[in-house]
Amino acid sequence: MALKVAALAGGVGGAKLADGLSRSLPTGHLTVIVNTADDFEHLGLSISPDLDTVTYTLAGLASPETGWGRRDETWNFLQALEQLGGPVWFCLGDRDLALHVERTRRLALGEPLSQITADLAGRLGVDQVILPMTDDRVRTIVDTEAGELPFQEYFVLHHFEPAVCGFRFEGSERARPAPGVLEAVQAADCVVFCPSNPWVSLDPILSLPAIAEAVRAKPVIGVSPIVGGRALRGPAAKMFSEFGIEPSALSAAAHFRDYLKVFVIDHEDANLSSDIGKLGMEVFVAEAVMITPDDRTRLAQEVLVLASELVAAERAA
Amino acid sequence: MALKVAALAGGVGGAKLADGLSRSLPTGHLTVIVNTADDFEHLGLSISPDLDTVTYTLAGLASPETGWGRRDETWNFLQALEQLGGPVWFCLGDRDLALHVERTRRLALGEPLSQITADLAGRLGVDQVILPMTDDRVRTIVDTEAGELPFQEYFVLHHFEPAVCGFRFEGSERARPAPGVLEAVQAADCVVFCPSNPWVSLDPILSLPAIAEAVRAKPVIGVSPIVGGRALRGPAAKMFSEFGIEPSALSAAAHFRDYLKVFVIDHEDANLSSDIGKLGMEVFVAEAVMITPDDRTRLAQEVLVLASELVAAERAA
Repeated sequence: MALKVAALAGGVGGAKLADGLSRSLPTGHLTVIVNTADDFEHLGLSISPDLDTVTYTLAGLASPETGWGRRDETWNFLQALEQLGGPVWFCLGDRDLALHVERTRRLALGEPLSQITADLAGRLGVDQVILPMTDDRVRTIVDTEAGELPFQEYFVLHHFEPAVCGFRFEGSERARPAPGVLEAVQAADCVVFCPSNPWVSLDPILSLPAIAEAVRAKPVIGVSPIVGGRALRGPAAKMFSEFGIEPSALSAAAHFRDYLKVFVIDHEDANLSSDIGKLGMEVFVAEAVMITPDDRTRLAQEVLVLASELVAAERAA
Repeated sequence: MALKVAALAGGVGGAKLADGLSRSLPTGHLTVIVNTADDFEHLGLSISPDLDTVTYTLAGLASPETGWGRRDETWNFLQALEQLGGPVWFCLGDRDLALHVERTRRLALGEPLSQITADLAGRLGVDQVILPMTDDRVRTIVDTEAGELPFQEYFVLHHFEPAVCGFRFEGSERARPAPGVLEAVQAADCVVFCPSNPWVSLDPILSLPAIAEAVRAKPVIGVSPIVGGRALRGPAAKMFSEFGIEPSALSAAAHFRDYLKVFVIDHEDANLSSDIGKLGMEVFVAEAVMITPDDRTRLAQEVLVLASELVAAERAA
């Protein structure tokens, strides 16, 4: 009997492992719970970057060049918008735009984000469950040396240049987990923290008290988003440094030490194994960098083997 | 000294003559006052079909195949929207979409439609003035055998199939002409009724009492939208028939008899000249069908010669 897994994911790196898990588990055995604190309104559209990246990746539609957006994309809308003097700092491809327009249309009719996400993912051919962490509004506000910035402005408009002093997840105390989120965690044999940014991808999900509580009751396996002191993408390593923490797989493990039973790190970081072990978790060394689609499946299968062992050990205890 | 002209226009036919006038008059000598009662909200976007057709046509960007939308258009957004199960009955090209998104964005910020229209037309290279008839909300409601329908649903979704019993222009009594509209009519030597649908393109403009009053004070030249008993595009002839009126250039002239000083009809309808004359207007027979861009300029120049003669005659009287 295959395991049931609930995976927490943010953007590109998380989506890749989620894709590997999706290919390695029978339909219905994986629920991907996705950060929505990056969501924002732009051009009158409700945009959910992490949900979209996970959806496109699991649908096999993600751009192989960027990791976000759609493959075989065209940019005629954005070009025309630029000619009209409109704001073009956030890249919206012609095909991608349909997802934002359709989501926005259905949200305006009062449908919850979780239902829209499930339906649209199904139409794109995704056969595992993708859930937003909440149907309520939660927004990551980045406190920087340049003042507070909504996440996408920090991330895209300012290319994550301003040094970060802190984060808050506006609305997270009152936000309710989306229907199915707690049920998926409770039904899971194991929770997987995908290699996503700890500060702005996974922390927002765990900022919902009910989700944090449900996750704490489960064995958790994490995969390090930091390899060799670098984030594989994005600003995670830079954020660690700005907080005065050395960016490393050890720091990432320490960040989630209250949750993690097992942490998967890259060969390059094997020397950190013993220090990570001292945090009170098992360490597993793997090829944690996912370049090809096969890399995703291989890493996912290693995670699933660890999960089986972990579950067997917990049952034996 | 070139004439100053205010042209009233709706969709494709009207836009073609407006384009001819635009090419034939010095910059600043033409104001095109455009029907906005066809405007509608779709996919959360504010769409102004007639404004867009006039803008694209005067910018040289209109699709030569359809008359509406942009040339060299791509349809990847619409294709993706269809895959997502979204409503695709109204065709939105990838480049065209930018105009609707940017207009909607600026309207939401509180900018008036007239200002947005002027700015966007300028960015697209239009050097004459294009004005919506009003910045207020006016909507053509079509009373049909199948009940009342908003105009675009009647026109696009139902392919103007239901027989029409009447029209109303919701909001027109209270709507104020957009800034510049009355001034343009008052400053004009002559008003031109472009060959647009009398019922649903020109009547809505004239349904604003202040515009009707200003137009009545000016010499008006109309160009027949009906040639040989057929509308050159769209449902005008069908509408005449459904109202029990024979669709003809004569009927079109009679529809506007309170306004017209001169009416331009096609050679094919030359036999109607005497009957149209009896309505109390001059009749001019021309090649009224515009196939090529040169046809537009030629017809516009004939209209301008008539306008000069009319203005000279009025001054002499």
